[in-house]
Amino acid sequence: MRNFEYQNGTRVIFGKGTQTRVGAEMRKLGGPVLLHHGSSSIKRSGLYDEVKASLEAEGLELLELGGVKPNPRLSLVRQGIELCRKHKIGSVLAVGGGSVIDSAKAIAAGAVYAGDVWDFYTGKAQPAASLPVGVVLTLSAAGSETSISSVITDEEGWHKLACNAPAIRPVFAIMNPELSMSLPPYQVACGATDIMAHVLERYFTSEAEVDLTDRLCEATLKTVIAAVTRALADPRDYAPRAELMWAGSLAHNGLLDTGRLADWGTHRIEHELSAIYDVAHGAGLAALFPSWMRFVYKANLGRFVQFATRVWDVDSSGQPEAVALEGIKRMRDFLVSIGMPVDLGGLGIPGDRLEEMATKAMRFGPLGNLVKLGREEVLAILHLAAQKDW
Amino acid sequence: MRNFEYQNGTRVIFGKGTQTRVGAEMRKLGGPVLLHHGSSSIKRSGLYDEVKASLEAEGLELLELGGVKPNPRLSLVRQGIELCRKHKIGSVLAVGGGSVIDSAKAIAAGAVYAGDVWDFYTGKAQPAASLPVGVVLTLSAAGSETSISSVITDEEGWHKLACNAPAIRPVFAIMNPELSMSLPPYQVACGATDIMAHVLERYFTSEAEVDLTDRLCEATLKTVIAAVTRALADPRDYAPRAELMWAGSLAHNGLLDTGRLADWGTHRIEHELSAIYDVAHGAGLAALFPSWMRFVYKANLGRFVQFATRVWDVDSSGQPEAVALEGIKRMRDFLVSIGMPVDLGGLGIPGDRLEEMATKAMRFGPLGNLVKLGREEVLAILHLAAQKDW
Repeated sequence: MRNFEYQNGTRVIFGKGTQTRVGAEMRKLGGPVLLHHGSSSIKRSGLYDEVKASLEAEGLELLELGGVKPNPRLSLVRQGIELCRKHKIGSVLAVGGGSVIDSAKAIAAGAVYAGDVWDFYTGKAQPAASLPVGVVLTLSAAGSETSISSVITDEEGWHKLACNAPAIRPVFAIMNPELSMSLPPYQVACGATDIMAHVLERYFTSEAEVDLTDRLCEATLKTVIAAVTRALADPRDYAPRAELMWAGSLAHNGLLDTGRLADWGTHRIEHELSAIYDVAHGAGLAALFPSWMRFVYKANLGRFVQFATRVWDVDSSGQPEAVALEGIKRMRDFLVSIGMPVDLGGLGIPGDRLEEMATKAMRFGPLGNLVKLGREEVLAILHLAAQKDW
Repeated sequence: MRNFEYQNGTRVIFGKGTQTRVGAEMRKLGGPVLLHHGSSSIKRSGLYDEVKASLEAEGLELLELGGVKPNPRLSLVRQGIELCRKHKIGSVLAVGGGSVIDSAKAIAAGAVYAGDVWDFYTGKAQPAASLPVGVVLTLSAAGSETSISSVITDEEGWHKLACNAPAIRPVFAIMNPELSMSLPPYQVACGATDIMAHVLERYFTSEAEVDLTDRLCEATLKTVIAAVTRALADPRDYAPRAELMWAGSLAHNGLLDTGRLADWGTHRIEHELSAIYDVAHGAGLAALFPSWMRFVYKANLGRFVQFATRVWDVDSSGQPEAVALEGIKRMRDFLVSIGMPVDLGGLGIPGDRLEEMATKAMRFGPLGNLVKLGREEVLAILHLAAQKDW
């Protein structure tokens, strides 16, 4: 086990009806409040009115910036920063899923930074401070509600980059699983895939003797596998929605990589996919992860055997390589069973820009930690992912 | 799943050599520092000198209060509070295990409270503020380093009571597993039992549909079972010490009871044992838990079957009752295998004061949540625990 530091100060307020507390929580952070959201779905569901009423009941001055899209855009972030400065905004409230939260974090950190916010994403600077951010979560997926991450897309040139800094972790996250019930099944499956991918990136480490975090990862994966299947079968069933929502936070709040070095290779490759093709992040991950596994499994066969036997209950008595491959196959079959694409064709992505994506993925040098992936390796994984069958 | 709130702001600094950072961390909390410890073992190991040097290198003014004993005493807490007030102490540093940390928390909260600190333990008041507390942990057991709990014994009348309040959670915890290597095997086993007991109190809930936390609990139990066996076999082996130390914190920092109501019946009964007989807390728990399980298992047979099959790998094809009983038997056999007593005789406790303990245990009304235990039920569990064989 490696030395580590861990702290997660976000206050989680979890359960039915909790969105009514947003006004009181935001008042603690101080106004005026920038209310940031994606517009349409929260207006349809009535959540928008509910949040606004709660904020107004606390006498908070409000400014609004809607229109966040999946793969949130740098241009909107810049607009938000300008608003914050002009109106002396005291805190930012994100109402939505990972895209809205990531965008809110970028705005909040950018507003108190003298330079250009994009510096935080290109690695030129690290956010040391931020306006306080509160969250009302509507979607179980990115885990951004308690994480230190934000991923933003610069639509000029379609660069999709991440910033990771404790300063941007939300102060509180209101998480009512009922709010996620109106999502279309495809989005539910994308979200569950994203949660699983966050765990898998951490699980596939080359660090030995990390038994506790291994088992916590496996526990989270098994929970998500069962819960998403139930959630898709009955969208109004509260219990699996609650499991998914809490699992989404735990998958990405830093706990599961304490003492180990996570991989992140597949995420980095996916960012190149979704930067160009603007696909849903979870679907992009589904289309890549089995191919990544297939490409790297021999580098740590023991870990892939453990994954197969503990997560997928593969009989451990077979040849290790056969056991490992069966685990990967079950992961892939599971993704198919929840309606995810498991190859680029399923995502609607043609094979003509693989070279370009592999090149762009090298922006900061080789990817991943379980296996270091150079341009050729990334290209090989993309080619695997472009095949219908291996 | 129940609605819940969760926040754990303690900064964990984990790994080899981390105790050298204590001075810099305490400087952030502000001096003068009250250095609180148990005296002998940290002086023998050299940790005392190392901590003092680190504090002095930061120019921190120091005041010292040693002499904390297992089942920490109210009289020493009162002495500490007086010192804090007289010397305008700015922060408290606990160097040791759960007893030292619990005592430091009591001092830190009592120092800023106008009334009597014992009010926090009798339920007359709740700590709303506290001097900041830092920790250098030497023992994997109580989980006090990141918890909101403190347990103190009033030696006049031998009342052992708990206080739980977010205000007393330590600001930081330095956790170097190497520091736990010099413990005698009996203390290592007591610590592991305490960790498992913290998980079991949460695991045995009557709340349905708490799959994620169930699985996280099982993950933690399986890790501790394997790690303590390895740690006892080779005291200098770092990996199992690291697993135990991190598991000890996670077992008791609130994560594992999110969304569920924990039991705490066995802990409450144990407090009556150790208040009178001053036994090690972990050993007291080992002597009681199997009997508690045996007494209550029919009230939630499904949960005991799950415990047997997932934690102890009992074959699930048998009759549910037989499967549940086999799980309890394996838990008991495991405790025996690590040198723990599993009955009161093994603890050296005679059977002549069971009635008195059962009466005192009713101080705040019936115990536990899986099954509400009145005086007669507590007495029945104590009688079971007094038998050598069931």
